[in-house]
Amino acid sequence: MSEFDLIAALRERLESSPPGARVRLGMGDDAAVTVPEGATATTVDAIVEGIHFERATAPPRSIGHKALATALSDLAATGAKSGEAYIVLGVPSGLGTDESLEIYEGIAALAERTGTAVLGGDVTRSDNMFLAVTAVGHLSSADAAVPRAGARPGDAVLVTGALGGAAAGYELLRERGVPDPPEADELRRRHLEPLPRLAEGAALARCGASAMIDISDGLGADAIHVSRSSGVELSIELDAVPVEAGVAAVAGSLGTDPLALATERGEDYELLACIDPEKVPEAVAALEQMGTPLTRIGTAAPGSGVVLREANGRVREPRGFDQLSQS
Amino acid sequence: MSEFDLIAALRERLESSPPGARVRLGMGDDAAVTVPEGATATTVDAIVEGIHFERATAPPRSIGHKALATALSDLAATGAKSGEAYIVLGVPSGLGTDESLEIYEGIAALAERTGTAVLGGDVTRSDNMFLAVTAVGHLSSADAAVPRAGARPGDAVLVTGALGGAAAGYELLRERGVPDPPEADELRRRHLEPLPRLAEGAALARCGASAMIDISDGLGADAIHVSRSSGVELSIELDAVPVEAGVAAVAGSLGTDPLALATERGEDYELLACIDPEKVPEAVAALEQMGTPLTRIGTAAPGSGVVLREANGRVREPRGFDQLSQS
Repeated sequence: MSEFDLIAALRERLESSPPGARVRLGMGDDAAVTVPEGATATTVDAIVEGIHFERATAPPRSIGHKALATALSDLAATGAKSGEAYIVLGVPSGLGTDESLEIYEGIAALAERTGTAVLGGDVTRSDNMFLAVTAVGHLSSADAAVPRAGARPGDAVLVTGALGGAAAGYELLRERGVPDPPEADELRRRHLEPLPRLAEGAALARCGASAMIDISDGLGADAIHVSRSSGVELSIELDAVPVEAGVAAVAGSLGTDPLALATERGEDYELLACIDPEKVPEAVAALEQMGTPLTRIGTAAPGSGVVLREANGRVREPRGFDQLSQS
Repeated sequence: MSEFDLIAALRERLESSPPGARVRLGMGDDAAVTVPEGATATTVDAIVEGIHFERATAPPRSIGHKALATALSDLAATGAKSGEAYIVLGVPSGLGTDESLEIYEGIAALAERTGTAVLGGDVTRSDNMFLAVTAVGHLSSADAAVPRAGARPGDAVLVTGALGGAAAGYELLRERGVPDPPEADELRRRHLEPLPRLAEGAALARCGASAMIDISDGLGADAIHVSRSSGVELSIELDAVPVEAGVAAVAGSLGTDPLALATERGEDYELLACIDPEKVPEAVAALEQMGTPLTRIGTAAPGSGVVLREANGRVREPRGFDQLSQS
């Protein structure tokens, strides 16, 4: 199949994605033309075979899903509504047309679910497979965007959902003899097909969140990003951190601490938000309507850095995923 | 150097790029936030080591330049003004920090020259180096965008600048014993650091171009894209095609036809435009002010397909660059 034929086939798969009210020129032109209103949030994210996923453990459909999900998660962290996406696919010679199309099926399904119009892309040969996704979201105004830099001393530190599921799912997928807990399928799904917290991010923005980030590098590492950008200390009580069901069982089998899976490994794509404590009840109620727990895990204070405090008062060093340090 | 440190270093290099009047949140947040006016044109383009460039022949600076240039060239083809760019860099383990930074110097220099704000990106390990660039341009309205699909029977077919320079430059860079013509440095630059025709694209749009495309795959292949999208035949007189100075000498050394380099090889990043013949003089005058030749090479007619006609009346088959067909 030639490049043009493959692109045509991939385009066909994506034409089912919702066209988007803002779209004037879509796929097949040199550039897509849209008419945005208010402000626009744009993010790019790449996932690479051997670094972010292994084809042995990740079905093609989930590779496509995850590539789009990680980009949409960045939009969620600013409070934006998802609008459009652009996909670059690097295809190794060993990847069949069917697998390429399955990758795009995963993208198209999540695009549909999140109201995202896939408007363009590029397909190229590459030694290892990669996907680079650009996601464009929309905000009523630039002031509506929640930055990393807005946390103030006294703000409550909150986290959506529960953590550790993606890391536990990854360990189960590696098939190193860890027995399946009852939640095993859900844990694997957390790793393979995370769902970006778009509605939750928008609700937290409406409720007045001062700073937000998605937990992609690990709770500790992402808290450091907020702390540095905002110029505050974030103090987190580890026994308040919500740990996903089944994570403790997997951690037990591995002989490790569930909190290490929940705070040091990342890829949960939950949101970490800072917010005036008076606004917490409203935010909790708003997310409850979506069926998503919102848990207070700490407080912002004058100073710098991140303190992860155990129930016994001992302080842990924040750790996170930093791929270029890995050998 | 860790991922975070490398990103910080790369970010520093790019902070010199013009911030852009529309930008509210720039680098370092989960997503960049801008306030567009009118309509937005968005394109993504990837270049991969071993497919689009070889590190043996392409200095890191030119790799960065070319990655951004190819994306901006797509904006030029819609008539948009360049606004913002987002860069994904896949870094092989053999690539040093200095080389990574030089790549970004090439991006930053072209960004500055074209008034493009580099607002975000992602850096990841990868077996082979790749760069994926998202470029966002701005238009006064969606109607101002020139599509591929607007060519009408009777339109003149025009091309900016001259063709074949990039292919000739590539042959010189391969060092297969082709002697340098006097224009050798310029030909190599055409291959390594093409300049997107942004001002020319905007002028052609203002002058009423009905269809436009940038010549990345080769004149014949790109003419086919316009022909298919517009539902017209494009008839091109090969002896009217402007061939870059020095191309004939390189073609002679290779024992090939200069017109093959000019029409079958691509990467010249000139613009192919269709326009009402009555508007041609105004368009030629507008581009003359920029020092850019605009040459009529053919005519759109009812029908389909692309006819490349030699001076003797013989018709050539259009050929172009189709990477996935290459073994």
